[in-house]
Amino acid sequence: MKDEFIDRLRSVLADVVDDPDILDSHRNDHATFCTAGVPLALVRPTSTAEVQEVMRLASESRVPVVTQGGRTGLSGAANAVDGCLLLSTTRLNQILEISVEDQVAVVQPGVVNASLSRAVLEKGLFYPPDPSSWEMSTIGGNIATNAGGLCCVKYGVTSDFIRGLEVVLASGEVVRTGRRPAKGVAGYDLTRLIVGSEGTLGVVTEATLALRPAPESALTAAATFRTIEDGIAAAAAVMASGLRPSLLEFLDQPTLRAIQDYRDMGLPSDVGSMLLAQSDRGARAVDDVSRIAEICTAHGAIDVAEASDAEESAMLLEARRLVNAALERLGVTLIDDVSVPRSQLVTLLRGIADIGTKYDVLIFCPGHVGDGNMHPTVVFDRDDPAAEARALQAFGAVMELGLRLGGTITGEHGIGTLKAQWLETELGPVGLELHRRIKAAFDPLNLLNPGKVLR
Amino acid sequence: MKDEFIDRLRSVLADVVDDPDILDSHRNDHATFCTAGVPLALVRPTSTAEVQEVMRLASESRVPVVTQGGRTGLSGAANAVDGCLLLSTTRLNQILEISVEDQVAVVQPGVVNASLSRAVLEKGLFYPPDPSSWEMSTIGGNIATNAGGLCCVKYGVTSDFIRGLEVVLASGEVVRTGRRPAKGVAGYDLTRLIVGSEGTLGVVTEATLALRPAPESALTAAATFRTIEDGIAAAAAVMASGLRPSLLEFLDQPTLRAIQDYRDMGLPSDVGSMLLAQSDRGARAVDDVSRIAEICTAHGAIDVAEASDAEESAMLLEARRLVNAALERLGVTLIDDVSVPRSQLVTLLRGIADIGTKYDVLIFCPGHVGDGNMHPTVVFDRDDPAAEARALQAFGAVMELGLRLGGTITGEHGIGTLKAQWLETELGPVGLELHRRIKAAFDPLNLLNPGKVLR
Repeated sequence: MKDEFIDRLRSVLADVVDDPDILDSHRNDHATFCTAGVPLALVRPTSTAEVQEVMRLASESRVPVVTQGGRTGLSGAANAVDGCLLLSTTRLNQILEISVEDQVAVVQPGVVNASLSRAVLEKGLFYPPDPSSWEMSTIGGNIATNAGGLCCVKYGVTSDFIRGLEVVLASGEVVRTGRRPAKGVAGYDLTRLIVGSEGTLGVVTEATLALRPAPESALTAAATFRTIEDGIAAAAAVMASGLRPSLLEFLDQPTLRAIQDYRDMGLPSDVGSMLLAQSDRGARAVDDVSRIAEICTAHGAIDVAEASDAEESAMLLEARRLVNAALERLGVTLIDDVSVPRSQLVTLLRGIADIGTKYDVLIFCPGHVGDGNMHPTVVFDRDDPAAEARALQAFGAVMELGLRLGGTITGEHGIGTLKAQWLETELGPVGLELHRRIKAAFDPLNLLNPGKVLR
Repeated sequence: MKDEFIDRLRSVLADVVDDPDILDSHRNDHATFCTAGVPLALVRPTSTAEVQEVMRLASESRVPVVTQGGRTGLSGAANAVDGCLLLSTTRLNQILEISVEDQVAVVQPGVVNASLSRAVLEKGLFYPPDPSSWEMSTIGGNIATNAGGLCCVKYGVTSDFIRGLEVVLASGEVVRTGRRPAKGVAGYDLTRLIVGSEGTLGVVTEATLALRPAPESALTAAATFRTIEDGIAAAAAVMASGLRPSLLEFLDQPTLRAIQDYRDMGLPSDVGSMLLAQSDRGARAVDDVSRIAEICTAHGAIDVAEASDAEESAMLLEARRLVNAALERLGVTLIDDVSVPRSQLVTLLRGIADIGTKYDVLIFCPGHVGDGNMHPTVVFDRDDPAAEARALQAFGAVMELGLRLGGTITGEHGIGTLKAQWLETELGPVGLELHRRIKAAFDPLNLLNPGKVLR
């Protein structure tokens, strides 16, 4: 039966892979701790029509389909399930149009974020969403997870830049959602429903993206504080000031020490927190950065550095860029992604320190402080099963705390399988039931990425 | 049975109205040409719990429910259907919280937009969505229709400011969607699905709104052009410039003549189009307005006026404010709401002129040009049935043209009953079927605003 299905796939598209080694190398995304099943085959369609044919065959044969982009996700949403067909969008990688007049791009889902960003920049335009995976992740994957990034604090997240989609449904039918112009309220917002649905409602085969005029040059400021409280208060004051920083990042003391241990950045060990801020308003960035520096000083900053050019700006951001490398050398990293109201950030950070103590694990807290979206990262020794168990407990405790503070379990990484259990807590029974009914409305046979988002 | 139902309503809430005169005065919103049925009763609940009780009773008795806010809609979405219960949100009118630190407001749906806007401004904050009905329309109604307005061109529409909702479902169950912090990707975006659903999926009983720091003072520029082409080209150049005008409006020649006939604004009759632009960046608005003026001059403007203070700004905007009054004195106005890519605006406007000629009707074309969202307004004599028939044909032809140009039949006014037929064309059969299934997932008995959006 497996052979017959693969033969049928080969009758509708050329790129069908059933080599076990290749399949094995495609089973996982970048999530830690998420199981991955054994796929039946991998297909790389090159057109919407091929995706339709694949979905028709999968529906007829009741074969589950897992759509994959760059497989850089952090929640297991792109992991294989047993007996599934992996549908890779990597060959649907054409930028179909960049319109300067309408400030939109029309792309296939497999276009890498960085390729698109560079292509539009050449035309004086800007596609803001910048997840840290941007050099590898695809627009389709960014849409599936509603990816964020550093510059969301000013520009918003992926969903804010998706005007319309072409989507192949589980049945193989194709539907166009949304529109090309800026405004439109015709019917239910299916576009937003599909953005962030992690491949459970349909396969995106084309997207119309909103672009902006390219930003001007950027300057950065960095400020160190004695305490968490001072750093968070300064961040809140920057956000309340009317300035619109294009980046506002926070590093806590454990993270700063890990960075300093990894590479000597001259960071004193008694620094309690650090803020990094950026303005991308060209000639006005100098004033913006000065005002941010003043605000930080007024909130008790020990030291404030203002970059005067791009090179100094890059140096000041170096600490932020080194976070992952500095933490990964300490052990396995389990990256959380809670998002809370800014007024709750100090309570969140204090509570996370308590969770670290309680479960005897290291937790580091960098984050997108302007949006209240923190990445508490539990680091442990994978060879120590007891430490792993404690790390997972701490990971859950951080999400519980985030929910208790009026936040969400995930600001930008998504649910996948990693957080499907906690999603049920966040949604509650009525919300969960609505999710199940919407899933059934799109995919009555539960073939699209089954077990992801909804268990 | 009717009496029994009303008795049961009175057992769960105080404000139950069955006086035929009062009911009659609540049958309609502001739409022209939309039929309204005869309601059974009107209730004005004062709490979420009362809304839940009302929905439970309505579900048990299979009585359709039409939710109403300020009834200022333009598509008949708030019109009664025969035998329905009108559920007015006017007594759910509390601003529950305004948080300066989190930059959010939590409100009940019956709060009038202007009341909220003024309340948050007192705390140095800003709720941007500004539909022209803002002095009368409610936040709940704005959510139901995903209302736009003049400043969307810079700030976005209602949905861009809705973080989370509390919603009572047809069953009487209550669900909370979304979140309070800026970012969150936990599960499907039910918030966005409900925004713009025109009361067909649930009754919004509370909303958490994103606020921004209050804008600085604003200045306005007005430019006249010989042709439509020049005005549209100048608008496109302003949008491409990297400036972010907080208002960018277009008036065509027929509209300008109607305004001049209504009140002498010194507008020469040979002016082919006018642009109005605003910058709300305080001290920098002077420079912004100068740059806009330069762009207009470079695109062949006959005359450009730059305001130097608030009073002059208001004077320049006077023409825009007089549009409705100037058109309504000429006859019945049937206001369309097509939105097209900016690159198609000239073709749209030329095509609309042809439609006016073909159907022998007057069509005026003011619009939010920065977003490509125009309001072609067919004006005719209601006492002339032949003129009315031609007006309706022209109205449909404008939407067909908008769709053909890659646009949508509605940028901000919604579907209601007025455009339910055309929505089917815009969605296509697969999209329509998805809409029906989503509707059934939320409201299996089809009791919430039946016949609206979906016929």
